[in-house]
Amino acid sequence: MNHPVAPAAMRLPLPEAFLAGLQALFGERLSTSKAMREHHGKDESSYDPMLPDAVVFAHSTEEVAAAVTLCNQHRVPVIAYGTGTSLEGHILALSGGITIDLSQMNRVVAVHPQDLTVTVEPGVTRKQLNQEIKDTGLFFPIDPGADASIGGMAATRASGTNAVRYGTMRENVLALTVVTSDGRVIKTGTRAKKSAAGYDLTRLFVGSEGTLGIITGITLKLYPQPESISAAVCSFPDIASAVNTVIVAIQAGIPLARVEFLDENGVKAINKHDKLSLPEKPLLLFEFHGSASSVQEQAEQVQAIAGEHGAIGFEWATRPEERSRLWQARHNAYFALLQMRPGSRAISTDCCVPISQLADCLLETKADCERENLVHSIIGHVGDGNFHVQMLVDPDDPADIARAEAVNARMVTRAIAMDGTCTGEHGVGMHKMGFLVQEHGEGAIDTMRALKHALDPNNIMNPGKIVRW
Amino acid sequence: MNHPVAPAAMRLPLPEAFLAGLQALFGERLSTSKAMREHHGKDESSYDPMLPDAVVFAHSTEEVAAAVTLCNQHRVPVIAYGTGTSLEGHILALSGGITIDLSQMNRVVAVHPQDLTVTVEPGVTRKQLNQEIKDTGLFFPIDPGADASIGGMAATRASGTNAVRYGTMRENVLALTVVTSDGRVIKTGTRAKKSAAGYDLTRLFVGSEGTLGIITGITLKLYPQPESISAAVCSFPDIASAVNTVIVAIQAGIPLARVEFLDENGVKAINKHDKLSLPEKPLLLFEFHGSASSVQEQAEQVQAIAGEHGAIGFEWATRPEERSRLWQARHNAYFALLQMRPGSRAISTDCCVPISQLADCLLETKADCERENLVHSIIGHVGDGNFHVQMLVDPDDPADIARAEAVNARMVTRAIAMDGTCTGEHGVGMHKMGFLVQEHGEGAIDTMRALKHALDPNNIMNPGKIVRW
Repeated sequence: MNHPVAPAAMRLPLPEAFLAGLQALFGERLSTSKAMREHHGKDESSYDPMLPDAVVFAHSTEEVAAAVTLCNQHRVPVIAYGTGTSLEGHILALSGGITIDLSQMNRVVAVHPQDLTVTVEPGVTRKQLNQEIKDTGLFFPIDPGADASIGGMAATRASGTNAVRYGTMRENVLALTVVTSDGRVIKTGTRAKKSAAGYDLTRLFVGSEGTLGIITGITLKLYPQPESISAAVCSFPDIASAVNTVIVAIQAGIPLARVEFLDENGVKAINKHDKLSLPEKPLLLFEFHGSASSVQEQAEQVQAIAGEHGAIGFEWATRPEERSRLWQARHNAYFALLQMRPGSRAISTDCCVPISQLADCLLETKADCERENLVHSIIGHVGDGNFHVQMLVDPDDPADIARAEAVNARMVTRAIAMDGTCTGEHGVGMHKMGFLVQEHGEGAIDTMRALKHALDPNNIMNPGKIVRW
Repeated sequence: MNHPVAPAAMRLPLPEAFLAGLQALFGERLSTSKAMREHHGKDESSYDPMLPDAVVFAHSTEEVAAAVTLCNQHRVPVIAYGTGTSLEGHILALSGGITIDLSQMNRVVAVHPQDLTVTVEPGVTRKQLNQEIKDTGLFFPIDPGADASIGGMAATRASGTNAVRYGTMRENVLALTVVTSDGRVIKTGTRAKKSAAGYDLTRLFVGSEGTLGIITGITLKLYPQPESISAAVCSFPDIASAVNTVIVAIQAGIPLARVEFLDENGVKAINKHDKLSLPEKPLLLFEFHGSASSVQEQAEQVQAIAGEHGAIGFEWATRPEERSRLWQARHNAYFALLQMRPGSRAISTDCCVPISQLADCLLETKADCERENLVHSIIGHVGDGNFHVQMLVDPDDPADIARAEAVNARMVTRAIAMDGTCTGEHGVGMHKMGFLVQEHGEGAIDTMRALKHALDPNNIMNPGKIVRW
């Protein structure tokens, strides 16, 4: 479908000398076929595809460096690609150029179980990583939903359901190998758990969405697999009661591993889709990690707090199949919602506010969806104040899409006014560049632009994303 | 005493128009007295003082912005000052200029107990902060030892004994107000717990040591005061057994709040100083935070693991006065050591390695101290792989100092070779600029330099620190 804010592309054909150089480097791993370019010219946003002129599949940091050197010499835009699951138009080739597909750089390079660290190539996906390290007794907790690549997750500062306990990619990347815009290879850190050694290049490249350099190696923190896991669900008479339960639980120091919110529309959809009979009220889903006695204590404490906030039907379980049953509503929420309006497509939003503002932000946004008569549901990583409104639109009806985008714009403005952010975890890409200015102000945006100009003086690294040149 | 690597200062007198402008802004809060300049021209490093030409006491972000604007117009260096407790020459006025003392900007601006956040001015010290928020049931955990200012702690990416559980300033600063080199005021973030909104300016300024801008406001994460705290101590037959105990405890997922190491020299010193009779062996000191049952469980688990590693005399306690008694050795270690060589001064070092390398790094460094016949002791934030060797030197004996500096240089080189860092928590200042290059390599240092040039094009912000111009 047409996205209402899709910018105009300015494209030049690739220079012949450049293509010849690329061919010499990549041979059969260079493609200019339409199918290959189409595959790499779209993500999971609602933008129309914008195709790169060529795609190469890199096998090493050195190959990426050689390709970027060539791009820099010829002023050709270059975009890094992992699994294509970004949500805000991050990987679209707005000005053409080449896409470097990193999915074949998918080796787990080194596991250090005593240090709780692992070093991976960027194409390793999070599920693959957890599979490969299973026998160490450790795991990597960040779970954005999609089986994204670790490189992409680092580049977009991803997070997801476990962030309330384990943090985001910001907290869990120890060091990066990065190819900078001049084709040099730098290491941004070490495997030391902490460091006060100079400017924090690691955090600068985490979340930079390929606009400052291309990430070709990532050292991550790992965590011991919990001795015990328990799950719980309960319903609430209203949104405020659910949110207040979480606030009190966090203030009490209960180390919630996950706490997810689903609004009554989501519950209705899931009841229909999965033939369940959950109360059609706001729902909280919890997960607790710890020793056997600790997860029991956490669940009991949360049950008591939820009870004080009018919770209905608190259920908890430790056996894996029982936990899966309790969390079924969350796992199937997206697809269940889609079936509430056949033929529709979901526009997913993302914002994050201080948790004290969350109930108000949710209620006002919900009222706005209802005023606009949008079929919608809200899912929240409620412990972090982060939530997503999914709005179902007719992909062929521009007015419908415009209505949803207007709700999104008002939601973001509301979140920013509440001292929150325009994106908790999806990133900026093309879609949120305007909101980024609104959130940060011109001074901070000028600072970001100065960083971009300093590290990518020829504007070849994923141009047209995050900040305007 | 003379520091062997003190660089030559290049100084120009302050322009008269500049001084007149400063006088108009600050009136009686401008001082050019020798005493005031001397007080601000030294920190707790072993460098000789290097005095600024003038000192001003700021009361607001606007005053800082006005002063920096003036400095930028006249190309006058400007250094931010909190409590003067930095350790690597961070605040020395290498090229003269002015020091902005921020200690009178010491208001706790806003506490949000539901969100577990607080916003403070930079001159608030960590003890003052915890005193002022005591009644909220929350606390700020970062404890670098000194009662440093929050602004200085952010600027140096400080941490300390609690970092193993709560992280460092890197993980605990949510947002900053910063005056940039052109005198503009920017906000680097919001109070949202997570964000994927553009380049991570917050983390860029955290640890930038006043070289990219001056921090005038800090929003921090807070934590619930633990329901229970318990402490434990035990001795080990050797360093490796102590370190391996910590590795196994962390791999088992025990959420240690503090775990400190003291070598046998430190224990000997404390036995003499405090008339104790601790076994003169490597010592571990633990602190556990959680519910009453959880801290008991943690202590029992650690006792079992320590027992498997040959621990001697595991003692644990929950009552505050008993906990203080157990930790007495740690609290008095520095002063006790100083008395082992009357008239001496301690040179303190700082490095951090992956914990699997810690025992080797400690043993090799210890052997080096012994070869050089240096009176020394080692204190370690062992859960993070971070340690400090304190070496006692005669402040009037250049050969003695040179010996200690050579041990330090070999220790840092060793740590870097082990994939560690030249500074875990003290920062770079002037003292570690060479080691920074050794750790990061020319490419990453060039990237840091590009950032410095981009954000401080006239090189007025604390010039001569972190990276050479």
